[in-house]
Amino acid sequence: MPDRAIGIFDSGLGGLTVASELCALLRDERIVYLGDTARVPYGTKSSQTVVQYAKRNMQFLRTHNVKAVVVACNTVSAQGVENFSQPGDPTIIGVIQPGAQAALATSRSNRIAVLATPGTISSQAYPSAINELEPSAEVKQIACPLFVPLAEEGWVDHQVTRLVVETYLTPLIDFQPDTIILGCTHYPILQTMIETVAHRLLGSATQVVNSATVVAKTVRTQLEGLDLLARANKNQHQFFATDVSNRSQIVAQRFWSKQHGTPPHFSHVDLPNIA
Amino acid sequence: MPDRAIGIFDSGLGGLTVASELCALLRDERIVYLGDTARVPYGTKSSQTVVQYAKRNMQFLRTHNVKAVVVACNTVSAQGVENFSQPGDPTIIGVIQPGAQAALATSRSNRIAVLATPGTISSQAYPSAINELEPSAEVKQIACPLFVPLAEEGWVDHQVTRLVVETYLTPLIDFQPDTIILGCTHYPILQTMIETVAHRLLGSATQVVNSATVVAKTVRTQLEGLDLLARANKNQHQFFATDVSNRSQIVAQRFWSKQHGTPPHFSHVDLPNIA
Repeated sequence: MPDRAIGIFDSGLGGLTVASELCALLRDERIVYLGDTARVPYGTKSSQTVVQYAKRNMQFLRTHNVKAVVVACNTVSAQGVENFSQPGDPTIIGVIQPGAQAALATSRSNRIAVLATPGTISSQAYPSAINELEPSAEVKQIACPLFVPLAEEGWVDHQVTRLVVETYLTPLIDFQPDTIILGCTHYPILQTMIETVAHRLLGSATQVVNSATVVAKTVRTQLEGLDLLARANKNQHQFFATDVSNRSQIVAQRFWSKQHGTPPHFSHVDLPNIA
Repeated sequence: MPDRAIGIFDSGLGGLTVASELCALLRDERIVYLGDTARVPYGTKSSQTVVQYAKRNMQFLRTHNVKAVVVACNTVSAQGVENFSQPGDPTIIGVIQPGAQAALATSRSNRIAVLATPGTISSQAYPSAINELEPSAEVKQIACPLFVPLAEEGWVDHQVTRLVVETYLTPLIDFQPDTIILGCTHYPILQTMIETVAHRLLGSATQVVNSATVVAKTVRTQLEGLDLLARANKNQHQFFATDVSNRSQIVAQRFWSKQHGTPPHFSHVDLPNIA
């Protein structure tokens, strides 16, 4: 049982930031990754469509007999796992709860900003999760739909990215958050720029919480609790995507931490519709 | 037969720029529009995936018994209709050929730039179509993946958009085109900004060709030739999308010309996978 793989799915390749952190923290684990690159992005689509896609992704990971599923996509996690899981499923770990906990642990003022996709924002998942843990916390959300294409283009240090970050963070000046959650797996690629702008606009003490790191720690804790941590190095990661092109291989390089060696090679998989 | 509708499909809502032009030019025609908003964008995905989606869209329009199909999506048109049509299909009109003809009619120097999605660029469809008509013409293509999200956000007059346009057009300074094709149905939304920057960087005589206008004229010519122009006003347009949300209704407003009154109301349709 512990030797079974950890399944990870994401709307696309942004979830590789979570997979990278997971590989760094849990070196003996084997990963089966699914990126739904044929339908990316999810963040600008309706919850009905997102749940339908999530069901399909879950179905695929079930066929790989995984011991746990990490929902690396914030937009999917925000819908609540009860909407796409079924009885008998392995433990499912989303990114919202760990992100909310980490933000509260980081914040002193309990004034927290969330940068996320329009889909995650409209679900109100982050404010709900934060206020359930700390009712007095104040949360302001900013939809950042341009961050995903900028991250995929790799415009990490580009003047355009600086200006987009400034545009999104300016409405936070009055709110004065001391902690910012990166509520999308693509955003860690832009973390340095977001921090630079945040420190200038909102004060140098502003902390940026990257949920990828936090999620990896949550996975370790949960697998430990279930006595499911791998006991020997079985590293033969598998990476699947619903659309594979030269471009997706290039994008994958941006999201895969260099410390894990060559970027993953993706196999194409065609997923059927589920009614 | 002439009273049957004209079918239009696009990866998303950008094709409404073509539908708008069509409504303006052919006031008696009835339109059935399909936007594959559950899978948008196509322009960053592989040709294999794009062709599969196009087959599904064609199948949907066949069930509506349309007299012609307008492929409003450049990325799909660039794959060649033979890859997704079948014998007995109504006449299919793509956007590449009309755009190529219009650019050559506009250009004096036969130095033409194409702004398009990565998918359209890598298909080489525009250079092929242009050089088939005029072998001496020189074509330079620029992939502009950030234009689609900027257009969808409605950042029409935003400093970020100006900077993105400058970034994409700067490599054209040495090439000195006198004509620029907007090779994606989303781009007309940004046309004013693209023209402003083009006139400054490339010279005030630079012409920008919006394929939406040209395609509408091509449809009229083809339907006239087939004696299929509608004879009486049967305007009961139908608009379908594979994902419908508040956001998609807002985005639709940006792409629908105000002269046609209230923006279209979209009905949700679920399209099955086709092997």
